[in-house]
Amino acid sequence: MSSDQPQCEQLTSWGGLRHLLTLEGLPRDMLVDLMDRAEAYLRAAGEPPARDDALVGRTVANLFFEPSTRTRASFELAAKRMNADVLNLDVNTSSRKKGESILDTIYTLQAMQVDVFVVRDASAGVPALIASEVQPHVSVLNAGEATVSHPTQGLLDLMTIRHHKTDFARLAVAIVGDIAHSRVARSAAQGLHTMGTRDLRLVAPPGLEPDPACYPGARITNDLNAGLAGADVVMTLRIQNERLREHETLIDAAEYHRQYGITRERLLRAKPDAIVMHPGPMNRGVEIASDVADGPQSVITEQVTNGLAMRMALLATVIETRQQR
Amino acid sequence: MSSDQPQCEQLTSWGGLRHLLTLEGLPRDMLVDLMDRAEAYLRAAGEPPARDDALVGRTVANLFFEPSTRTRASFELAAKRMNADVLNLDVNTSSRKKGESILDTIYTLQAMQVDVFVVRDASAGVPALIASEVQPHVSVLNAGEATVSHPTQGLLDLMTIRHHKTDFARLAVAIVGDIAHSRVARSAAQGLHTMGTRDLRLVAPPGLEPDPACYPGARITNDLNAGLAGADVVMTLRIQNERLREHETLIDAAEYHRQYGITRERLLRAKPDAIVMHPGPMNRGVEIASDVADGPQSVITEQVTNGLAMRMALLATVIETRQQR
Amino acid sequence: MSSDQPQCEQLTSWGGLRHLLTLEGLPRDMLVDLMDRAEAYLRAAGEPPARDDALVGRTVANLFFEPSTRTRASFELAAKRMNADVLNLDVNTSSRKKGESILDTIYTLQAMQVDVFVVRDASAGVPALIASEVQPHVSVLNAGEATVSHPTQGLLDLMTIRHHKTDFARLAVAIVGDIAHSRVARSAAQGLHTMGTRDLRLVAPPGLEPDPACYPGARITNDLNAGLAGADVVMTLRIQNERLREHETLIDAAEYHRQYGITRERLLRAKPDAIVMHPGPMNRGVEIASDVADGPQSVITEQVTNGLAMRMALLATVIETRQQR
Repeated sequence: MSSDQPQCEQLTSWGGLRHLLTLEGLPRDMLVDLMDRAEAYLRAAGEPPARDDALVGRTVANLFFEPSTRTRASFELAAKRMNADVLNLDVNTSSRKKGESILDTIYTLQAMQVDVFVVRDASAGVPALIASEVQPHVSVLNAGEATVSHPTQGLLDLMTIRHHKTDFARLAVAIVGDIAHSRVARSAAQGLHTMGTRDLRLVAPPGLEPDPACYPGARITNDLNAGLAGADVVMTLRIQNERLREHETLIDAAEYHRQYGITRERLLRAKPDAIVMHPGPMNRGVEIASDVADGPQSVITEQVTNGLAMRMALLATVIETRQQR
Repeated sequence: MSSDQPQCEQLTSWGGLRHLLTLEGLPRDMLVDLMDRAEAYLRAAGEPPARDDALVGRTVANLFFEPSTRTRASFELAAKRMNADVLNLDVNTSSRKKGESILDTIYTLQAMQVDVFVVRDASAGVPALIASEVQPHVSVLNAGEATVSHPTQGLLDLMTIRHHKTDFARLAVAIVGDIAHSRVARSAAQGLHTMGTRDLRLVAPPGLEPDPACYPGARITNDLNAGLAGADVVMTLRIQNERLREHETLIDAAEYHRQYGITRERLLRAKPDAIVMHPGPMNRGVEIASDVADGPQSVITEQVTNGLAMRMALLATVIETRQQR
Repeated sequence: MSSDQPQCEQLTSWGGLRHLLTLEGLPRDMLVDLMDRAEAYLRAAGEPPARDDALVGRTVANLFFEPSTRTRASFELAAKRMNADVLNLDVNTSSRKKGESILDTIYTLQAMQVDVFVVRDASAGVPALIASEVQPHVSVLNAGEATVSHPTQGLLDLMTIRHHKTDFARLAVAIVGDIAHSRVARSAAQGLHTMGTRDLRLVAPPGLEPDPACYPGARITNDLNAGLAGADVVMTLRIQNERLREHETLIDAAEYHRQYGITRERLLRAKPDAIVMHPGPMNRGVEIASDVADGPQSVITEQVTNGLAMRMALLATVIETRQQR
């Protein structure tokens, strides 16, 4: 893997967004600009979705080396509503033996004049590796990278929080779940940090706490009640049983729910107007009670809508950056 | 499953078609209107196919929880020729554990502003369940539901029959095969009933006869010759060996052909101008002889062409209904 | 399989290209015309790709009965950039039991008004069989046929050679690898023959030499050094281990590289301005050294770019042929 500083490589020399690899190091103004642009793509339910000609004649390749339904659908519709040509390649990881062959796939698609690669991969460093090798006019969007980064999710989370809460600096945000392996938590924390949020609580079961070095300034705890106390935002993470098993912290779903599930009673510890977030897909009755998921404080489907708008904003932005080069 | 009366829920209060879940209870005028609209989309072979801008800016999601090539292709081309954005999701049933998760997939796609869900599922009640949960501006088209319903197939069958035979009330129609498990037979019978056909013969091998309550007024028999006598329309069904095995009526293909296969000799029992139909894909030499499938009385490829036109008509109709709300 | 002379059947009575089944028998003028047309679709890297309205309202079905990423992506983008409606059907060979069912799939899609079938199949004769059965206005493009033919690859190879070398008649071309099972070698040799190349060397490991009757006039050898001596073009083929194993000539990858891999030292035996070609995907370090693949003599990514342009040219040509009928 060629790069230690993806955060530098994603910007052009004059500061335009060329790739989106990580939220780490992205300036606050750029985050705000992306949120503003994405909001401009929102429409009321029932109205036709926003369209934009920014990608007419451009080609977007969705390269998903890890299975995904919702993120792939979101990027696919974002590209189609911007009138791009879209190529979906669901590549089984098992058919990939060595690092070089990913790059040969990229060189091949680049030779077919793909403009934007949307990449999801189970190995850390793959989006940055690809970004370091593509031609100057090609962009890479990270659609989920191992346990490291999921920057489009982070941006849609920020956008959703901003819609409900005005001042990031005054927020108390609790993220609950397997923080150690969560790219969602990592990207959210990086974005919140840039936006000025100082009160971040990371609530994880014993053994699933993150490396504190990855979350400077955050409070790491096993105590859900303490984490939720007075929170403005409660973000609960999907429990991935196969991952828990790997790490020998096998937890029964019912037991997990009892200890770390977000229920109506537990939510009373947060502020009365706290919002509840989940990146999906949910295990109802495990990390979140069904009545909370569907309740008045839930903004979960709003996150999905914002995600598509944010991906449209990102596509428009990287194509614009390219035109300014 | 929430609904006992999908036939009521598919119409708006003023009688517009919002969802297509079943042909049961659809008024005769609506069937005629759909056939008229679909016919307007037919073109001569070699001419460019009909196009329509009725779905510009709309999104159609094909959710196939059961594998399908022809029905999926038909819906996909129908949507593309109406200039919709199309999202294909071939979801493996095994990845679906409980009822709720289907709905969460639907809520997610709805939050991405999908306008029409085309749903095929192996469980009874799923299209109606989805229809009962989507937002008011969203439509559901049933593309095959367990052994219960396949209404777009029923409509294309009616359209094909109408093209060749003028008066439904005077027709004798024979449906031959595993009636007990056939959604194709169910939907055809419902449509024929509404159109006024009174002479319906259901010919099934012993053990595969349907529940008579599902086919009021039909003649159910094991005797193929009696069923074919004087028929205007002969519809033969695909034999699904795996299903036969399940029901312990294991029949050898050659033996099935000998007893229930439609051959040239057998077809002589029907009217000289009888048409032969099959929903496809065919097992040639099993339920139908190859020379009958390709013979002058066969309207099998016409059914396929009509199917695509009918799916265009349905997409146009539900979008129009929505605009009139 | 119905046809012994696909080369006759692919042209109309007045000599227009209706199907592309094989390069065998295609007149030199037609090859030149296709190369000229394809070159007109080339654009500089970073510029928007060429587009063409020649296929507006037309439907292209990609029927891949053998898995493929690059060829399918190339045809898909070619069709989309010509504004066709595109249907992708990746059909698992295992789900196909007898010859007739392929044709029934074709009849079905034809009834949905598909205009062009792009077909890849592991059985010899399938593209010609389909071409012999479709309606007069429908075209078939062979996207890879068993070990027999890969004509679009042959055309892109010719186009790439022509760009670098002016006179086919004076060229010495070496093709290296498992010639016995290579459809790429077969199509390249047929095209080169038509263009006037007389010095063709086929270098294969013992046991993998081709039937000389398939390569009239070519020199067949096991000696790589002799094959490369003074060559203008070095085309190396992908080693398919599973195929080697079948033919009991199991060769270890490192041993293959030592004996038949194209390395910098070996390349010194060819002319100094020799170009190096590979159809992809590459096994770096097996049939080709990585520094050769990425070196100044390599035209491998150019082949990919030319391939997409050639497929656009072919789609435009068969649609034009149809309009002249």
